[in-house]
Amino acid sequence: MASPGSGFWSFGSEDGSGDPENPGTARAWCQVAQKFTGGIGNKLCALLYGDAEKPAESGGSEPPRATSRKAACACNQKPCSCPKADINYAFLHATDLLPACDGERPTLAFLQDVMNILLQYVVKSFDRSTKVIDFHYPNELLQEYNWELTDQPQNLEEILMHCQTTLKYAIKTGHPRYFNQLSTGLDMVGLAADWLTSTANTNMFTYEIAPVFVLLEYVTLKKMREIIGWPGGSGDGIFSPGGAISNMYAMLIARFKMFPEVKEKGMAAVPRLIAFTSEHSHFSLKKGAAALGIGTDSVILIKCDERGKMIPSDLERRIIEAKQKGFVPFLVSATAGTTVYGAFDPLLAVADICKKYKIWMHVDAAWGGGLLMSRKHKWKLSGVERANSVTWNPHKMMGVPLQCSALLVREEGLMQSCNQMHASYLFQQDKHYDLSYDTGDKALQCGRHVDVFKLWLMWRAKGTTGFEAHIDKCLELAEYLYNIIKNREGYEMVFDGKPQHTNVCFWYVPPSLRVLEDNEERMSRLSKVAPVIKARMMEYGTTMVSYQPLGDKVNFFRMVISNPAATHQDIDFLIEEIERLGQDL
Amino acid sequence: MASPGSGFWSFGSEDGSGDPENPGTARAWCQVAQKFTGGIGNKLCALLYGDAEKPAESGGSEPPRATSRKAACACNQKPCSCPKADINYAFLHATDLLPACDGERPTLAFLQDVMNILLQYVVKSFDRSTKVIDFHYPNELLQEYNWELTDQPQNLEEILMHCQTTLKYAIKTGHPRYFNQLSTGLDMVGLAADWLTSTANTNMFTYEIAPVFVLLEYVTLKKMREIIGWPGGSGDGIFSPGGAISNMYAMLIARFKMFPEVKEKGMAAVPRLIAFTSEHSHFSLKKGAAALGIGTDSVILIKCDERGKMIPSDLERRIIEAKQKGFVPFLVSATAGTTVYGAFDPLLAVADICKKYKIWMHVDAAWGGGLLMSRKHKWKLSGVERANSVTWNPHKMMGVPLQCSALLVREEGLMQSCNQMHASYLFQQDKHYDLSYDTGDKALQCGRHVDVFKLWLMWRAKGTTGFEAHIDKCLELAEYLYNIIKNREGYEMVFDGKPQHTNVCFWYVPPSLRVLEDNEERMSRLSKVAPVIKARMMEYGTTMVSYQPLGDKVNFFRMVISNPAATHQDIDFLIEEIERLGQDL
Repeated sequence: MASPGSGFWSFGSEDGSGDPENPGTARAWCQVAQKFTGGIGNKLCALLYGDAEKPAESGGSEPPRATSRKAACACNQKPCSCPKADINYAFLHATDLLPACDGERPTLAFLQDVMNILLQYVVKSFDRSTKVIDFHYPNELLQEYNWELTDQPQNLEEILMHCQTTLKYAIKTGHPRYFNQLSTGLDMVGLAADWLTSTANTNMFTYEIAPVFVLLEYVTLKKMREIIGWPGGSGDGIFSPGGAISNMYAMLIARFKMFPEVKEKGMAAVPRLIAFTSEHSHFSLKKGAAALGIGTDSVILIKCDERGKMIPSDLERRIIEAKQKGFVPFLVSATAGTTVYGAFDPLLAVADICKKYKIWMHVDAAWGGGLLMSRKHKWKLSGVERANSVTWNPHKMMGVPLQCSALLVREEGLMQSCNQMHASYLFQQDKHYDLSYDTGDKALQCGRHVDVFKLWLMWRAKGTTGFEAHIDKCLELAEYLYNIIKNREGYEMVFDGKPQHTNVCFWYVPPSLRVLEDNEERMSRLSKVAPVIKARMMEYGTTMVSYQPLGDKVNFFRMVISNPAATHQDIDFLIEEIERLGQDL
Repeated sequence: MASPGSGFWSFGSEDGSGDPENPGTARAWCQVAQKFTGGIGNKLCALLYGDAEKPAESGGSEPPRATSRKAACACNQKPCSCPKADINYAFLHATDLLPACDGERPTLAFLQDVMNILLQYVVKSFDRSTKVIDFHYPNELLQEYNWELTDQPQNLEEILMHCQTTLKYAIKTGHPRYFNQLSTGLDMVGLAADWLTSTANTNMFTYEIAPVFVLLEYVTLKKMREIIGWPGGSGDGIFSPGGAISNMYAMLIARFKMFPEVKEKGMAAVPRLIAFTSEHSHFSLKKGAAALGIGTDSVILIKCDERGKMIPSDLERRIIEAKQKGFVPFLVSATAGTTVYGAFDPLLAVADICKKYKIWMHVDAAWGGGLLMSRKHKWKLSGVERANSVTWNPHKMMGVPLQCSALLVREEGLMQSCNQMHASYLFQQDKHYDLSYDTGDKALQCGRHVDVFKLWLMWRAKGTTGFEAHIDKCLELAEYLYNIIKNREGYEMVFDGKPQHTNVCFWYVPPSLRVLEDNEERMSRLSKVAPVIKARMMEYGTTMVSYQPLGDKVNFFRMVISNPAATHQDIDFLIEEIERLGQDL
């Protein structure tokens, strides 16, 4: 890894040929650098050679000289005879960077060196010979490095070191063998877009301060609604900070649609509301109900079949039951792609029930929404077009960097009525442009991070067909895994049949347990297998996959594949690794 | 601006000296590049010259050759005689980048070229000769460029072009003359940290997948609580997606503290709750109350004095009134730094009242919290240490890139009890490390963006003293503006006296209005002045400052200074510009 001291401007090459005082080389470097960096190349050269207008004339006889020098070298020889470096981060602080006077040169050097550290990390992330994680226990990590905040500034050499250290201990979420979460992988165009978003450093509340991003949000949400199947892509929506918040929005808007007075008068003014979702649904439904003053007791969990799909007859039964008690069913949240099993609730049947009982139909497709991009797999979400609202997280199955979660709403204007507060310091009504682009007042948030650009740019770069190819490949890999282990000795599937999403749920049964009868002792021992294998995986740093218990099923592995870097060989590796790490248990 | 076609690998320099087939130059470039890019430099050279092990031996007689070539040139001569470029983005797509086989080389080139575009933007942002904004109306922007999403992928040349176009129309929020929002400026270390955050691309729910970031959140929140004045920095907290959500958290936790049964049973199980905040407070308090099922009618707005500070006697009167009606006061939200006036509510008096009536005291210091870093100004928040919870947005006065908002809570464990749902697929209880670092279940969100690293790294780079210097400087600039305009012809102050924060609120009165009597017609005409000047500012792109009406006061300018790039000259410029653009009105 690059030593922070040997950065952009440290011209101490071993034989001196990189020395700016060596005219031929210096000029050649400049000529190349101009191509290398476009307009910035000129600037770099000009800064280096002290001539802002004529950075590197070809064929000139008198080469420009470096204008200033500071002592620095990374050769480790003391005293060293290397040409002295031009920028020494040990002598520089944040106050020397832009907007400081003369800050341009150290800024470019510093940011370029940060970028070099990041590029190294990116390249390593995809290298199977590197660890997914260099795991340390919390107390070790706290002791190994001083993370404390102090009164006095540190120099930029130390700052670069912190960047390296932070990445050293980070999870390589783009690593081909990282399968731990629904969001895995590191998309290069998405990453570039996220860097740009950081650089633009603005907020989403008004067109005034985010003109392009507001338009891109409009274009992208419309496209997503078209794909859902709403006529002409009409409707509404927003990018929110994650699927849990998107689901909470759905609940909020559904409640407002039925009882708009709740906005002013609160829950005291409305009857007891009941929401329905499956027992395999995401915990955010309960979390949202708790926050919104509805209460977790008012979220009825509907039974699922053995594949984790909501049973429509149980839904209808519970709706009738609630109504008989005088309660008001206001929301059904069906799940398209459950977190653990990857199950798709039967949306058409749910839609029929919602229509019959006049209940808002929400589809939590945070995980499964991506399948809408695939002609082969989108049938699994048939009926989603009948939903009133849909959560769809491109940061999951579509590989967009974190965070990127959309809530789509079929009825336009409802979000605005539900959430607007007309803050006059942001949403002035006498602005000189079309105010319909000031979309911030439909959000629960005031300031809102720009989450759309990475999705938009990836979509331009991949096309819908590129997302489709990615999704089809991940689904195919999941089926590959399923086919290998379904009849393999030492494996038991948690549910039968091919995976519908990329979730493959299974127990690994070590040899010592295979001979045991299927009783409580075996269950108890089996429940300890996955945690130990997982802990070993992390300590070796070779791969990561999730596990959990569910209902009466003890700890099992939940493999999911959203990582575009994963191949058949990585699936093979996972199986070998589980067996290697678990055979003695 | 660099043409995407003339990127990193396009070696077509005018005299051919950058040609990799010209041995001397090529070798020299490599030697320099190794220093330039650290470890990545070797890799770049190796890739370019087809030798992974010996990228650029000094003094070697046989230079390595480029291994492959593609037709590309940016010279615009057809046919051209330039040395052929090595990477032509017009022939490359996202699928050629990592994790593609052989993707490393185009990836490094592409990301470096994106970076060059970003560096150019950064440098321009600080250049006073550039526009703050190249303003276009929404319909113009929609017509000028094709933003639509399509089925087919675009090549990387087009992707680089989109990056340039997006930045061309962006607001330069780091520009020294951008004063439009509470969050302005572009901090170089913060930016670097945000790039790193994007590259790490992880989520905050568990230590397992964000070990360093979880520890840094712990360290940073503890430090912030120490600065608030809670003994030993004890307590709890979280980084949330913005001040509005932080305020909503406070309301949620305050309600839970008083009536924990609300989590399961909802608002139906509790008496009518009342929250109190000043009429100058942020709209998010009402937004939160609407969302949480409390209702906006249950947020009582307390009167303010002429400086925008809450009047404690009115607070007490309204609390007594609510209690007499049988309602339950559960939260007072005092504001430290109101959005428009920058007023600080009298926290000590509010704390006394909250103690007397046993009400949760929240301080919304989203905007004013930064002043706690200044020994000179922190007295304005005296009493904040008596709060039960505090919202503090480092992305405002402390210049941290968006978003970075903290909610700090005095009582430890309350957030966890209030929000936890024990999802077994994330928060397994049989993990091999200390589970107290799995902090995700205290959040409303499930996935949570990493917002801490930019604050932490900036803090290391600036030290507390660096933040202090920044804040003192901004306050001084506000006083400078106040001193210039308070007696200047054509200006009227919205309230008397020195600014307490950096908010300076004033009317500019054009010559034609100065002669009018103070009647309705004058008010009506005055109300149109700020919007017109603002529209002209944006069309010229010279500067941006906000305006709004407030209560019975017609549109006035609200100047705020959080931008570290702003100087006295920029304040002078703002005044000149207002007069230049408004004198004919």
